[in-house]
Amino acid sequence: MPQLVLIRHGQSQWNLENRFTGWWDVDLTEKGTTEAIDAGKALKAAGMEFDLCFTSYQTRAIKTLNLALEAMDRLWLPVTKNWQLNERHYGGLTGLDKQQTRDRHGDEQVHIWRRSFDTPPPAMDAGSAFDLSGDPRYAGVKVPLAESLKNTIERVLPYWNSAIAPELKAGKRVLISAHGNSLRALVKHLSGISDDDITGLEIPTGQPIIYNLDENLNEVERYYLKDRS
Amino acid sequence: MPQLVLIRHGQSQWNLENRFTGWWDVDLTEKGTTEAIDAGKALKAAGMEFDLCFTSYQTRAIKTLNLALEAMDRLWLPVTKNWQLNERHYGGLTGLDKQQTRDRHGDEQVHIWRRSFDTPPPAMDAGSAFDLSGDPRYAGVKVPLAESLKNTIERVLPYWNSAIAPELKAGKRVLISAHGNSLRALVKHLSGISDDDITGLEIPTGQPIIYNLDENLNEVERYYLKDRS
Repeated sequence: MPQLVLIRHGQSQWNLENRFTGWWDVDLTEKGTTEAIDAGKALKAAGMEFDLCFTSYQTRAIKTLNLALEAMDRLWLPVTKNWQLNERHYGGLTGLDKQQTRDRHGDEQVHIWRRSFDTPPPAMDAGSAFDLSGDPRYAGVKVPLAESLKNTIERVLPYWNSAIAPELKAGKRVLISAHGNSLRALVKHLSGISDDDITGLEIPTGQPIIYNLDENLNEVERYYLKDRS
Repeated sequence: MPQLVLIRHGQSQWNLENRFTGWWDVDLTEKGTTEAIDAGKALKAAGMEFDLCFTSYQTRAIKTLNLALEAMDRLWLPVTKNWQLNERHYGGLTGLDKQQTRDRHGDEQVHIWRRSFDTPPPAMDAGSAFDLSGDPRYAGVKVPLAESLKNTIERVLPYWNSAIAPELKAGKRVLISAHGNSLRALVKHLSGISDDDITGLEIPTGQPIIYNLDENLNEVERYYLKDRS
């Protein structure tokens, strides 16, 4: 039975500061580092083994993976990094904290952006301090100006289908370290969650989600490792 | 002009204790961690950019690479890990410190093992505490019982030729984090060093070696980054 484990990166500096982060590349906090190590220890204690790992182009997800793998004595596992597993791009909200956003745009609008499936936030201004279109890591990538959750899914799923799903179908055990919204994209797909329901699904940081999948890679069982340990 | 940078991992716990390490998987010391970060900072300060990284299956080389990449803000670069870049396998000497080795085998024999090009150390005993033939990372790999430098070269160069050289010829800028003897194998090949001379070439930990290569991937220029910074 194909086995997949998802981890959302540990707490980042901007998680802590309650700021919209998206594609901006912030580091883990000390707590986030500990969460990543603890996730690795829990996977090791559960005897879980992997053949392949995937992560995004973002430091907080890559470091979470590296710290977890080190705690598992599995730093030698192959890791593939791809921008399509990046967090949702928050456009013009990037860098704002939740209070600033409410002050600027009003409670109702903020609620729509956070909970709508297909309404993107305002586009990032040209020349914004948070504009990553010139970052060498995104050479050849059309960096979005803003993404709805729907937009995020539209670039996560092609990568899932082309790079990850074939490995699971070939019997490889896969570990993915990614972000709140790129993981929502996967959970929605694997577990058949509706557009309306997926925006309310919260994925906690640093908690391995275990998926047992059928041969078509649909959910047979999904649980948090902590709930079975 | 193809550009290649080699880094020997930072100081490991057994470098510090003067013990033969080989394929045994020891961690970096605090000093080794600092060396790795400093190597990354120096590469960043020199404005060096890379497209691809290679490392071994061993924690000390992988962590050196990860720490250096993080210091360069390049943690997102693709990394390929392969056992053929591992350190020379020290066979039955694994775990012994230099004094124990001399006491057990005599100064002259130890000198031969350390400085001979093609004399392997004694084979690892079956059931040794340092036997890695059952380690999952080496599933499908015929773990050697001991290696001379010649034996090491004989598994490093096929990997160089099949995986690394084609990338350099295609214009990719390559960073390799590896070990004293796997790097000797590469330096011997690239710089045309004789069998007799290569065993005396010491590669310091954590010091980036810069290679400018001709189109056949022979040395045009080789220097330590620290000597030009």
